[in-house]
Amino acid sequence: MFLINYLLPISKENPNDAVIKSHQLMIKSGMIHKVGSGVYSWLPIGLRVLHKVIDIIRFEMNNIGCLEVSTPSMQPFELWKKSGRHSDNGDLSAETLVAVDRHGNKLIYSPTAEEVFTELFGDCIKSYKNLPIVLYQISTKFRDEIRPRFGLMRGREFLMKDAYSFDIDQKNSLKNYENILKAYLKIFKQCELSAIPVLAPTGSIGGDYSHEFHIVSDTGESTIYYDSSVINDIENQNISLENLNSYYICEEEKHKYNNKKPINIKGELIETKSIEVGHIFHLGTKYSKSMNVKVQGYNGELFYPSMGCYGIGVSRLICAIIECYNDERGIIWPKKLAPFKVIIININNNCEKCDQVSTKIYYELNNMGFEPLYDNTDDSIGKKFARADLIGIPVQIVISTKNIKEDKIELKFRQKIESIFLEQENIINYIKFVLN
Amino acid sequence: MFLINYLLPISKENPNDAVIKSHQLMIKSGMIHKVGSGVYSWLPIGLRVLHKVIDIIRFEMNNIGCLEVSTPSMQPFELWKKSGRHSDNGDLSAETLVAVDRHGNKLIYSPTAEEVFTELFGDCIKSYKNLPIVLYQISTKFRDEIRPRFGLMRGREFLMKDAYSFDIDQKNSLKNYENILKAYLKIFKQCELSAIPVLAPTGSIGGDYSHEFHIVSDTGESTIYYDSSVINDIENQNISLENLNSYYICEEEKHKYNNKKPINIKGELIETKSIEVGHIFHLGTKYSKSMNVKVQGYNGELFYPSMGCYGIGVSRLICAIIECYNDERGIIWPKKLAPFKVIIININNNCEKCDQVSTKIYYELNNMGFEPLYDNTDDSIGKKFARADLIGIPVQIVISTKNIKEDKIELKFRQKIESIFLEQENIINYIKFVLN
Repeated sequence: MFLINYLLPISKENPNDAVIKSHQLMIKSGMIHKVGSGVYSWLPIGLRVLHKVIDIIRFEMNNIGCLEVSTPSMQPFELWKKSGRHSDNGDLSAETLVAVDRHGNKLIYSPTAEEVFTELFGDCIKSYKNLPIVLYQISTKFRDEIRPRFGLMRGREFLMKDAYSFDIDQKNSLKNYENILKAYLKIFKQCELSAIPVLAPTGSIGGDYSHEFHIVSDTGESTIYYDSSVINDIENQNISLENLNSYYICEEEKHKYNNKKPINIKGELIETKSIEVGHIFHLGTKYSKSMNVKVQGYNGELFYPSMGCYGIGVSRLICAIIECYNDERGIIWPKKLAPFKVIIININNNCEKCDQVSTKIYYELNNMGFEPLYDNTDDSIGKKFARADLIGIPVQIVISTKNIKEDKIELKFRQKIESIFLEQENIINYIKFVLN
Repeated sequence: MFLINYLLPISKENPNDAVIKSHQLMIKSGMIHKVGSGVYSWLPIGLRVLHKVIDIIRFEMNNIGCLEVSTPSMQPFELWKKSGRHSDNGDLSAETLVAVDRHGNKLIYSPTAEEVFTELFGDCIKSYKNLPIVLYQISTKFRDEIRPRFGLMRGREFLMKDAYSFDIDQKNSLKNYENILKAYLKIFKQCELSAIPVLAPTGSIGGDYSHEFHIVSDTGESTIYYDSSVINDIENQNISLENLNSYYICEEEKHKYNNKKPINIKGELIETKSIEVGHIFHLGTKYSKSMNVKVQGYNGELFYPSMGCYGIGVSRLICAIIECYNDERGIIWPKKLAPFKVIIININNNCEKCDQVSTKIYYELNNMGFEPLYDNTDDSIGKKFARADLIGIPVQIVISTKNIKEDKIELKFRQKIESIFLEQENIINYIKFVLN
């Protein structure tokens, strides 16, 4: 991409309403644009990151056999009466956004989709032979937060991956729950995050078992307590429900309930602020029963399938990554998530030779799939460097008249202070080496 | 994908409310599932097709330098007051779905997004140097149709690709309009459709120039009249606004206005029913003026950019493809759009040797990226064949005990009546040849 043809509205000023780093940096680096209270547009550079995170999530969900579907954002209120989560008396949660259509029927903007998925399952699946099945979608949700804040960390309209599992019984259902818990840890690891699964209350979604996934961060709104030795098992992807339960990990309420006396600590007890990026629930037969969805068993008998539901806040996940990867100059994207992996900064934009070399390198990298951005603007050298750092491009190739004369090209790395200098003929191979 | 682990709820019966082929076939082949009036979920096999069509659209839009963004579905009513499309007196179109948030603010579910894009542009782009620019998104829209019908052909919630162009003046703006018109014809051609651009009235969106894209189909709700010789230019991608204007092509109203007397017919005058799958508008400065969005010109003066907006009904496009590609047995997917390119039908599911051969072929094709589906169910032979035809898989590999014994494998093609028989060792190469 040539920067001159791109939409990258960076700014120096922090927006008035932005108090946390990710909110500030997403606005300043031109990733998002505010449309209204808690409602944002994704701009091109932000959308590129979003698509990469979506690809990671989709790959890992498909990899364990989950099937992707897409349900509507506006759902008939009738479905919510069926499940009993809401009734005609209007006891809708204050966070639920309701519209009334021209025929006077209420539609709910989906905050989650247990009802639609349970009904979909009931209409489509009739036999135990088709179980287990896990359906998921990656789609827009709306929650009418009373005080939207922190940008997309606590926005009203946001992207969510929600999944729903259906099994013949509780034992199989918990196995599915465990599989998805493991897949979640893989997803977060690929986003270069260490997520800690914390046993959690089930709240309005209900069910009998639940885990939240927390990312350690000073700017988080939650507080968690955990045994430091669990990190080792998470890093090694050696997590079953059983060994997870053997560690002391809990949120604030539970820790108080325990009189702040942790038991069986194998390493150190860590107290930290954290960001919740995912939440999974073992629902059991709560929804299949309330919506009367049954499946035929091996001997012809009808039974209620045992369910689970599983959410990842995709928009918020990106905020959490930025909270973990930034410095005073801007975002520091992990290679896999960077909107562009490499930027070519031509600091002598009027030098024909510089443009020739830059363009040649650009096309070579582009053809190799390295997603280069070419800064061919008339901006000052300082502005070009500051922008490349702000938007967090991992590898920065600096082209200047002076260096070209000496057959040198400067290579800067977002995470390091010192540059290296290479001969022109070696540049492509070196970048291949660095980025693969 | 192994069919036993898949969600493919096919049915024999036509749903009561389905009168056109695409609606019937999308329900019967398990592509979509009805949630409410004019509101559907995409099931796995439908979503696979949807993603392929999205990929085609995204490729062609990026290819002409358009930039993808994503704006929110729920938009502040204030923006619609700014443009003057709606006022406080409540003259919202009856098709506009409105919600009121907990603070009493009106939100509109986006039916199009001129306002949000014009404001986004105004906030981000300040200089003529950054023009031209075309922004687009592929996102969910809602139009509260009084009588939703024909499935996703005239649904309420649907997927749309909408694009907005910004140029320094009318001349450049019309050039952009022409570029996008050409890209649209490429998109439809890749979907194996011949789309006819028809000069159209501009309606509530406004502007000074507009084309609809029509697909010839008996089940269409529109009627168009066109000079048959234009098809040649469309097929050869030899379309400029100038040569398009040289042909007699018009919708019903215009044809009546012309006293049904076409002029300059070079081939034959065709009268046909058609499906509108896209609509482009040259807006001029209508929105930049009403929303007071200006850009700085070459000499420092401020000017209103000239705009265009460009829509493709993505969900409806899929309906149109099915209307064009079906027979009494089901859908006949063009290779590029098929949810699975090849199905392996093991008709002797209890034969170990058959399963071995099927599985071997499955993995070979899968590793080569041919997206096979393996029908390893216990269903009857008749049901298996009928299902493969109904869901429209182009290439069908039939494995049976009898044929395996003779080292033969049967190859059926959805579009042909007669099968061919190959030796097992030749099957993969033959399929490579057929599908590439």
